[in-house]
Amino acid sequence: MIIVLKPAISGEEKQKILDKISALGLKTIVSQGVERSIIGVIGEEDVLRVQPFEAYPGVEQVIPILSPYKLVSQEFKKEPSVIVVRGVPIGGKDVAVMAGPCAIENYELLRDIAREIKRCGAQILRGGAFKPRTSPYSFQGLGEEGLKMLQQVGEEFNLVTVTEVMDPRNVGLVCRYADILQIGARNMQNFDLLREVGKAKKPVLLKRGLSATIKEFLMSAEYILSEGNLDVILCERGIRTFETFTRNTLDINAVPAVKQLSHLPIVVDPSHATGKWGLVIPAAKAAVAAGCDGLIIEVHTHPEEATSDGDQTLNIATFERLMREVRPVAAAVGRAM
Amino acid sequence: MIIVLKPAISGEEKQKILDKISALGLKTIVSQGVERSIIGVIGEEDVLRVQPFEAYPGVEQVIPILSPYKLVSQEFKKEPSVIVVRGVPIGGKDVAVMAGPCAIENYELLRDIAREIKRCGAQILRGGAFKPRTSPYSFQGLGEEGLKMLQQVGEEFNLVTVTEVMDPRNVGLVCRYADILQIGARNMQNFDLLREVGKAKKPVLLKRGLSATIKEFLMSAEYILSEGNLDVILCERGIRTFETFTRNTLDINAVPAVKQLSHLPIVVDPSHATGKWGLVIPAAKAAVAAGCDGLIIEVHTHPEEATSDGDQTLNIATFERLMREVRPVAAAVGRAM
Amino acid sequence: MIIVLKPAISGEEKQKILDKISALGLKTIVSQGVERSIIGVIGEEDVLRVQPFEAYPGVEQVIPILSPYKLVSQEFKKEPSVIVVRGVPIGGKDVAVMAGPCAIENYELLRDIAREIKRCGAQILRGGAFKPRTSPYSFQGLGEEGLKMLQQVGEEFNLVTVTEVMDPRNVGLVCRYADILQIGARNMQNFDLLREVGKAKKPVLLKRGLSATIKEFLMSAEYILSEGNLDVILCERGIRTFETFTRNTLDINAVPAVKQLSHLPIVVDPSHATGKWGLVIPAAKAAVAAGCDGLIIEVHTHPEEATSDGDQTLNIATFERLMREVRPVAAAVGRAM
Amino acid sequence: MIIVLKPAISGEEKQKILDKISALGLKTIVSQGVERSIIGVIGEEDVLRVQPFEAYPGVEQVIPILSPYKLVSQEFKKEPSVIVVRGVPIGGKDVAVMAGPCAIENYELLRDIAREIKRCGAQILRGGAFKPRTSPYSFQGLGEEGLKMLQQVGEEFNLVTVTEVMDPRNVGLVCRYADILQIGARNMQNFDLLREVGKAKKPVLLKRGLSATIKEFLMSAEYILSEGNLDVILCERGIRTFETFTRNTLDINAVPAVKQLSHLPIVVDPSHATGKWGLVIPAAKAAVAAGCDGLIIEVHTHPEEATSDGDQTLNIATFERLMREVRPVAAAVGRAM
Repeated sequence: MIIVLKPAISGEEKQKILDKISALGLKTIVSQGVERSIIGVIGEEDVLRVQPFEAYPGVEQVIPILSPYKLVSQEFKKEPSVIVVRGVPIGGKDVAVMAGPCAIENYELLRDIAREIKRCGAQILRGGAFKPRTSPYSFQGLGEEGLKMLQQVGEEFNLVTVTEVMDPRNVGLVCRYADILQIGARNMQNFDLLREVGKAKKPVLLKRGLSATIKEFLMSAEYILSEGNLDVILCERGIRTFETFTRNTLDINAVPAVKQLSHLPIVVDPSHATGKWGLVIPAAKAAVAAGCDGLIIEVHTHPEEATSDGDQTLNIATFERLMREVRPVAAAVGRAM
Repeated sequence: MIIVLKPAISGEEKQKILDKISALGLKTIVSQGVERSIIGVIGEEDVLRVQPFEAYPGVEQVIPILSPYKLVSQEFKKEPSVIVVRGVPIGGKDVAVMAGPCAIENYELLRDIAREIKRCGAQILRGGAFKPRTSPYSFQGLGEEGLKMLQQVGEEFNLVTVTEVMDPRNVGLVCRYADILQIGARNMQNFDLLREVGKAKKPVLLKRGLSATIKEFLMSAEYILSEGNLDVILCERGIRTFETFTRNTLDINAVPAVKQLSHLPIVVDPSHATGKWGLVIPAAKAAVAAGCDGLIIEVHTHPEEATSDGDQTLNIATFERLMREVRPVAAAVGRAM
Repeated sequence: MIIVLKPAISGEEKQKILDKISALGLKTIVSQGVERSIIGVIGEEDVLRVQPFEAYPGVEQVIPILSPYKLVSQEFKKEPSVIVVRGVPIGGKDVAVMAGPCAIENYELLRDIAREIKRCGAQILRGGAFKPRTSPYSFQGLGEEGLKMLQQVGEEFNLVTVTEVMDPRNVGLVCRYADILQIGARNMQNFDLLREVGKAKKPVLLKRGLSATIKEFLMSAEYILSEGNLDVILCERGIRTFETFTRNTLDINAVPAVKQLSHLPIVVDPSHATGKWGLVIPAAKAAVAAGCDGLIIEVHTHPEEATSDGDQTLNIATFERLMREVRPVAAAVGRAM
Repeated sequence: MIIVLKPAISGEEKQKILDKISALGLKTIVSQGVERSIIGVIGEEDVLRVQPFEAYPGVEQVIPILSPYKLVSQEFKKEPSVIVVRGVPIGGKDVAVMAGPCAIENYELLRDIAREIKRCGAQILRGGAFKPRTSPYSFQGLGEEGLKMLQQVGEEFNLVTVTEVMDPRNVGLVCRYADILQIGARNMQNFDLLREVGKAKKPVLLKRGLSATIKEFLMSAEYILSEGNLDVILCERGIRTFETFTRNTLDINAVPAVKQLSHLPIVVDPSHATGKWGLVIPAAKAAVAAGCDGLIIEVHTHPEEATSDGDQTLNIATFERLMREVRPVAAAVGRAM
């Protein structure tokens, strides 16, 4: 940690800060610049992080040096993690494909969609039973009934299943039915929920919050790992910016950035990241070209009848085209799909 | 709702959309423009909201007309709501002042701070027992022990108390000790939590999410009201932008905007909205001048020893100055403080 | 254009608005909804755009329907434009590669870089002679001397040249030496400059402003086309968001979005869009996979000695690897590179 | 400047960096931390700023310590600058009021507006003769004819005048007619224009770019001061964020932030910062309460007939109310208006 002092700081104030650091058991190096003094602090940065040095009137700026995350970092584990869910690897050479409706609406429909995505080559079935909706008056999902349908259909077509859990009280329930627990973007910093899925015995798909930095995203993953669950799959799903033509802005830079910082696999959700079905295929190609480990796509047999997110949902023909067109891109970057 | 059709849409596709709307029991007016047709839909817009008309290939754009919120809106209730908590009104002529430490650290300290803020004129004591922290390794709060301290100190100094609840499982617990339940910015769209506090019998202080639009903010309040709890106090606490000099950007426009759209009271948190204690007083003045109904300020007897948010926390002398300098501004806009 | 009236508007106020529209020679359709009246206006929307209907107290919202751009739109010209510069096509089947230093530093260096990028397969040499720098104390470019070097080196290696023009007074000068005029991100809404290059007889590479929406980006291109210069190449170079790990956020969605809205070619600048040389290759792959028509890359023989942008500049070996790794991606999406 | 090295850096690479710094005539302090080495560099930071140390593969992060601006900084000049224009001080105890139409439309209208704003207490008349418009088809201003009207009307009512200059070729022309040269938000980083007004003998009103950080804003002012023109008035006019209810987000924090960093006066434009006439008065009160040195307000006798920005323009009655309601706020913070 670097502490930059104001030019006008008194000797007494400076000493107070040095004493404080030394009382924490850390060493300092003071470098007297042309205009300002700078204190370099050596030792465990975590001890310092809780100390609000900026509260001292003589301090101009405090600059942390070390990353605040540990277990998720490249330095903790060099080789990329591969998370294998019922035989489907996420994070290795293969690009995993998760597809399905935004919300589970009824059994027949889910079965129809599952059959089609399986035929097109997806390995994982997505579908929401608990839906986070901006309005309390919108359809909120079928709850446990939906989970049962998901499990049954997943088994019938031998598809791994992933579904969102929003409430820490429902983690056990969702674990009984689904293979992968999804944490939605709005809950990326719902820390009680993160801790709860950290204690669960199922892999977690953690979506990036719509205004979370890459570092905050990794810190949320750290919550889960720190509870003992190492099977976290990150998901870039678009961030909120000033642009209004698209629903979100796909932060494609985040894919290689996460690969540099962490060993965890990262998948991309081009449906939410664009918000427009007509942009999903090029966004999916870009994601795979940038090195992501999987895609999660909203697919429905009749998007124009879907209870939510129909505007960004692919119909079967378009999903089939996506698979056909993305595969050569995966091959071009040395991946299989 | 307005549905703008693409210039190239076929007559058949157009008819399909008109039939769909009519099947929902709604009327349409078609206006044939120079380049495009536009369908105006008359009737309950809620019925339409669930229909993803943009999924039809011939549709260019769907434009909702009505606001999606009801109970929180000016149209539902013309007169501003005044929420009275143990004799302290929020939303009337008075500007309420909430102050206290970011986190409750121990009993003596909380007592010291409470005595001082009371002396300076605050009516409400804030302090966190459950803390949402970006890192799992940071201090997470004292939990129930902290709540007990808050209650005891609140009673001793006759201060109303407000504290954050993060987990739906803890709503009952927090209700036993605190007067006002705070929903933090990161949980503004934690819908299960919103529903849970919506069922509670205590007023709720709802903080705006760091990238929530004003409309989404009001929709989250709508969740609480729709469960039967009408006592919601909104809180603008700064939004996330590209600016890095300050921790957040205080969206001062949101204060009069909320006053135009809703009957709910709105308070401002200049501590989080700036992130720098040296900017808190001018930001507080601006908030009161813009018409807010209260302030919530982080105050500590020794900010440089605080376990969290010390950089943005006022010491007693500065808080005293804040009260002294903001009061005339309140008077200048016809408010008492 | 749709004009949404407030529920409380008087009949008289409403009539005033209708009269105003009719005085402009336009027709109206009034649709009386459950809560609000809505006026649909039929006719040339441009006439209306200058009328600030929101200034009427009875108006709640004004919603434009038609896009404000014309010459750049898909509706004006269906087939994609191919701009051929000295035999190099931009916008067709080929992916054009522009490469070179941020700033032209001296003749020998530029020659060295040009030779290498040519060898690696680039067709276009970039290099700044006039540099927009945040600080007045930073290196501002070599000016006309730099332009001469660019021209000479471009001719020696048979490379098309592109360089930035910042000042309308220099458009003529830059035209004498360079093949393509670049408008930088900071000048995307420098309308006098846009008009000036619109009158020039050289193709223009227009960079997107760092907080410009896609629509504003197209409107700036419209300025150039409306002066008679149809040879505009758009360039996505990253937008400004809250993310700080990368210098900018590459808005990959913008590539297919522009392809939907406009006939103009679009290239991507992964150097500025990431700000980190270690992220440039995956970003370049993503851009090509998303359908862009070219890349513009900062390359230097010794990035650690570059006078500007060294942090995001590739050395020759890395550029060579970029070309080698991006080519199969281009092929995978049916393009040659 | 602090250079953070990667844990894996070789001794040789490290030495190369140390040699480079020493060759620049600067001293280093190396601090060997638990995980990483850090190099502190002592001496003129400007020399280093041009060196792209991040281009070295062994470098993880480069952290500048000193602010890049000099002449605009508090450290350069402690006392706040007061800029006096034809007897009207900007930056002292008084809050200056600039008002007038967005665009100058004709002589009679400008005269009517000027008479009214003078009567209400404004000292400075604003009005655009050269208008930056997103669309090439919108009204672009009256040019020199407009300037003549502005000068004539300014003289008749003894009002100081301010108007925008967009093109470096027009600086001389605008200087002949107006008292203050305005640089619009879109031109905040039009460096050739900044240099040109830096050479002019007239005060400059510099508007903040819609996505410029406070530091970039001050750097643009530095351009003007570095050319010898010390009379720069900063103007906060709202920044671009994700919020769509308002046209821009008034960054009220920027007012006290600029006061901490610089000696230059800062005024606020609540018209652009909100984009809605109904929010202008509360925003103006907030701005004055936060400590700004002036207001610039769009006023028109008939906003609903204005050729531009009518939606955010006050009519005379509302402007009169603004003056009446803001004055007590100014008094409450020790200012006269």
